[in-house]
Amino acid sequence: LSARTGEHGDGVRWHCVDLLRADEVSGLMAQVAPTHLLHLAWFVKPGVYWSSPVNLAWLGASLEIVRSFVESGGRRAVLVGSCAEYDWLSGRCHELSTPTRPQSLYGICKDALRQVASAYAREVGLSIGWGRLFFLYGPHEHPSRLIPSVIEGLLAGRVVECTAGAQYRDFLHVEDAAEALVALLASVVEGPVNIATGHAVTVGEVVGRIASEIGRVDLIRFGVKTRAEDDPPLLVADTSRLNREVGFVPRLDLAAGLCRTIDWWRERRGSTPAR
Amino acid sequence: LSARTGEHGDGVRWHCVDLLRADEVSGLMAQVAPTHLLHLAWFVKPGVYWSSPVNLAWLGASLEIVRSFVESGGRRAVLVGSCAEYDWLSGRCHELSTPTRPQSLYGICKDALRQVASAYAREVGLSIGWGRLFFLYGPHEHPSRLIPSVIEGLLAGRVVECTAGAQYRDFLHVEDAAEALVALLASVVEGPVNIATGHAVTVGEVVGRIASEIGRVDLIRFGVKTRAEDDPPLLVADTSRLNREVGFVPRLDLAAGLCRTIDWWRERRGSTPAR
Repeated sequence: LSARTGEHGDGVRWHCVDLLRADEVSGLMAQVAPTHLLHLAWFVKPGVYWSSPVNLAWLGASLEIVRSFVESGGRRAVLVGSCAEYDWLSGRCHELSTPTRPQSLYGICKDALRQVASAYAREVGLSIGWGRLFFLYGPHEHPSRLIPSVIEGLLAGRVVECTAGAQYRDFLHVEDAAEALVALLASVVEGPVNIATGHAVTVGEVVGRIASEIGRVDLIRFGVKTRAEDDPPLLVADTSRLNREVGFVPRLDLAAGLCRTIDWWRERRGSTPAR
Repeated sequence: LSARTGEHGDGVRWHCVDLLRADEVSGLMAQVAPTHLLHLAWFVKPGVYWSSPVNLAWLGASLEIVRSFVESGGRRAVLVGSCAEYDWLSGRCHELSTPTRPQSLYGICKDALRQVASAYAREVGLSIGWGRLFFLYGPHEHPSRLIPSVIEGLLAGRVVECTAGAQYRDFLHVEDAAEALVALLASVVEGPVNIATGHAVTVGEVVGRIASEIGRVDLIRFGVKTRAEDDPPLLVADTSRLNREVGFVPRLDLAAGLCRTIDWWRERRGSTPAR
């Protein structure tokens, strides 16, 4: 179920549908009658998605997607939340013990979807998992975001200005995130499950590793940018539910994940016309 | 804005629109460009609304209604919540100190709407009030609900079976509820405001008053029905926000409100063919 279509094959069949149109969604659900649903669509344009009213429509659309899935015989669904649901003063976040206290409109919409979809699932006997994403990186990431902008800048030989980089985050390669979500969907685990590595690394270390790999440590300027006041010092996942209950452990460590990502950006530059 | 149309006049103009269709709603909002919005539509069919998935659609529709209202220049909105948002173990409920802990899908949908709409309102500078209804009665109430069923039963000369009636509730006449919501809309009060009397009365007293007024106390059988296990012993509103901040005090006390309601049902019986 996607607004874009790709290649058929390997057992994959694409359907083109506007997920914001309830009638189109319910028509396709009735036609396909899926047993499993992994729903990721949301509005996440960097810089604007935190406060965008477009996500009010995605909250409504997500509810319609789940409802028409159930009404077409669906049994198991995984929806995707965010570390933005947590109280960010908590540091290490556990699904069952860390309070949710979303501050952004985006986080509040995610929190609302989780609560309503869970209550609905209880009413109709739907099994529902809630994958809570932390910080992702890898191929196809929007170029304005941290890791692509550092890689692109260094590959182009530009000076890259950063914060001091002391804040700890939990970075997961997007291929591991995809496999974790598929594993969660295939499991019977219900409720929120952090999709992350469980390892805290400073933003400075991530930037430093990229610079070392590319061989342009000289271009990094730490401490030039200032962090947002509400930027928490530590935001990392407890991943015991993912590791033990779902039985998934990420395959790529940070070094391997960053190397793959740098290679992908190198190839992308190589395949586009030189400046 | 209503799915049903009534008489024009007295400055009232009806528009017919399907509120579950976002395109129809946004078209009408753009045409009318209202400054104030009082949105009451929800699915409340007695016996089924607590757990009905139809209210997932009303949550989504409510978000679209508020969004298209704002995008058409709207400034002040009042949406309508429910005492079902509160932790029912709290007894007397205050908007700012009693925790919300909805148990039903209906209450969870209301709670989600309030949180998302409030966050959206902060982003766009919309002034928003949230009228929290408790127990209403009066003309046009669904005949399967408590007060109409007691009145109808007694007027028809039938035995009426009740619980022991020891549970305390806060009953407001629907005309006062309507005036309270209009007063809230005309005010600048933001956030949740209980729409209620602030007075606790037992269900037994309400039934007894109806029976006395009709003169058929002999037909009441208290203690025959058993209450639901989760039926709270006391559910009453603190109304200091409504009384002091909005400046509204209900006009009808219970005796006057019940007399009017009984009269309305008497007239209704008189105007329908005899059995």
